[in-house]
Amino acid sequence: MPSEFKIIRRVEFSETDMVGIVHYSNFFRFMETAEHAFFRSIGYSIVSNQTNPPVGWPRVHASCDFRQPLRFEDEVEVHMIVTEKKSKSLSYEFRFRKLNANPIVEVARGKLTVVCVTCDPQGKMTATHIPREIAEKIEVAKPL
Amino acid sequence: MPSEFKIIRRVEFSETDMVGIVHYSNFFRFMETAEHAFFRSIGYSIVSNQTNPPVGWPRVHASCDFRQPLRFEDEVEVHMIVTEKKSKSLSYEFRFRKLNANPIVEVARGKLTVVCVTCDPQGKMTATHIPREIAEKIEVAKPL
Amino acid sequence: MPSEFKIIRRVEFSETDMVGIVHYSNFFRFMETAEHAFFRSIGYSIVSNQTNPPVGWPRVHASCDFRQPLRFEDEVEVHMIVTEKKSKSLSYEFRFRKLNANPIVEVARGKLTVVCVTCDPQGKMTATHIPREIAEKIEVAKPL
Amino acid sequence: MPSEFKIIRRVEFSETDMVGIVHYSNFFRFMETAEHAFFRSIGYSIVSNQTNPPVGWPRVHASCDFRQPLRFEDEVEVHMIVTEKKSKSLSYEFRFRKLNANPIVEVARGKLTVVCVTCDPQGKMTATHIPREIAEKIEVAKPL
Repeated sequence: MPSEFKIIRRVEFSETDMVGIVHYSNFFRFMETAEHAFFRSIGYSIVSNQTNPPVGWPRVHASCDFRQPLRFEDEVEVHMIVTEKKSKSLSYEFRFRKLNANPIVEVARGKLTVVCVTCDPQGKMTATHIPREIAEKIEVAKPL
Repeated sequence: MPSEFKIIRRVEFSETDMVGIVHYSNFFRFMETAEHAFFRSIGYSIVSNQTNPPVGWPRVHASCDFRQPLRFEDEVEVHMIVTEKKSKSLSYEFRFRKLNANPIVEVARGKLTVVCVTCDPQGKMTATHIPREIAEKIEVAKPL
Repeated sequence: MPSEFKIIRRVEFSETDMVGIVHYSNFFRFMETAEHAFFRSIGYSIVSNQTNPPVGWPRVHASCDFRQPLRFEDEVEVHMIVTEKKSKSLSYEFRFRKLNANPIVEVARGKLTVVCVTCDPQGKMTATHIPREIAEKIEVAKPL
Repeated sequence: MPSEFKIIRRVEFSETDMVGIVHYSNFFRFMETAEHAFFRSIGYSIVSNQTNPPVGWPRVHASCDFRQPLRFEDEVEVHMIVTEKKSKSLSYEFRFRKLNANPIVEVARGKLTVVCVTCDPQGKMTATHIPREIAEKIEVAKPL
């Protein structure tokens, strides 16, 4: 059962800052891009009406440890694994590896915890059980 | 009647790129920030249910000419004027001035055209007349 | 001789806004991503020390006309063509097409003009002739 | 001696996502904006040549816990305190409060650890002692 996913992206110019490295806030965007690709890999979109009621996945915790910088046009692999599956939340870990280094080097590690919610018409979010059809497709990975 | 607005912002670190200057896409964010402050100044939010039906303002044209770069911690004044008010659209011009230069220098000029729309439940947008209570509060400015 | 390039990207969650569509400033990021891939296709990076002296390419004009919105997970093709090659500047046009529409639909058109510059140690930019080894690899495209 | 700082910002349209709330990556931008204002308050810029040699402050750890969403035009106070001052690093904590709520509500808490570095001409960073003139102006705050 799916429990991990890898994406590769090339660092874009607009993701760099005046120090010449990827601005750290972008690592959180990259994590999410891997998560969303993981959801597509199991047949779902992170934002959709595929379940009844529709559910959303706001982040309740995010962290990242940065070891080495990424620079313009670097190729970075974002490797996501599912580390916890509770009735109403999922947790992930991420490894960022710079592929155009020799040898390939891990540049950062991240974590996310997301909660499954329903939204009322005013936008108020309430935690809810992960729909069974989604939960059945997600497995906790072996630790890296 | 209101026809212009000025905001001042300090360039943030995350708005710079590896060349050490403000990434050009941010000038379009800055224009919008001035527009939204202008709307607040006449008692409206650019996104709200204050009118019946609610209306939105997607951009149909945006342009900018860049003369000099902005850098981290520069103070920039964004001066917006209304240049055209049609039944279903508004056009603006923008002057960007670097206030921490001596003398103060114009660094960029921009233009936006936005259309008043309603959205159906699926998100499809249809151009509509600007609600009278909004149109009555906006006047075309004298050219700069 | 190379005179155009196409890239495809999938709209990311962080590129959407509260209206549910891609924020218009991102179209300017997408244009640049196509331009930088074009430069790589001719053996250069848009930011490098490959020439002596090193040159940069600040934007002096950018514009975009928006016809239809893009949404989360849409696949967009950005087709860039070189429309003008002067001694110190290049101009491009861009067509944005939504590939996951049936039929495929053009959603936006953009333009960029960039100037070739050298930078002194203080970061001051001065327009300069496009290095011959780069100019020789770029040709003006036939109009679309 | 300075050990904390508060800034207030209004949520901008481009900071929202399709769910209608501030994209979580922006909380990391907001933290940094408070940090940079704190540095200005003690007479320094986070990026400058004011010390010999010049120093930079890359992030080595960042985390945030999200309790409630922020929305367009919300006013958020970012309260930063210095929680640790080591010879080569600083740690901060952040409280995000939504000021236009009644009562005012804490919406998120964050942490950052930044390391003082020098850069060689190739951009390689090496951890270094915090320059005395800066260290003397920063004090660890009482816990919140």
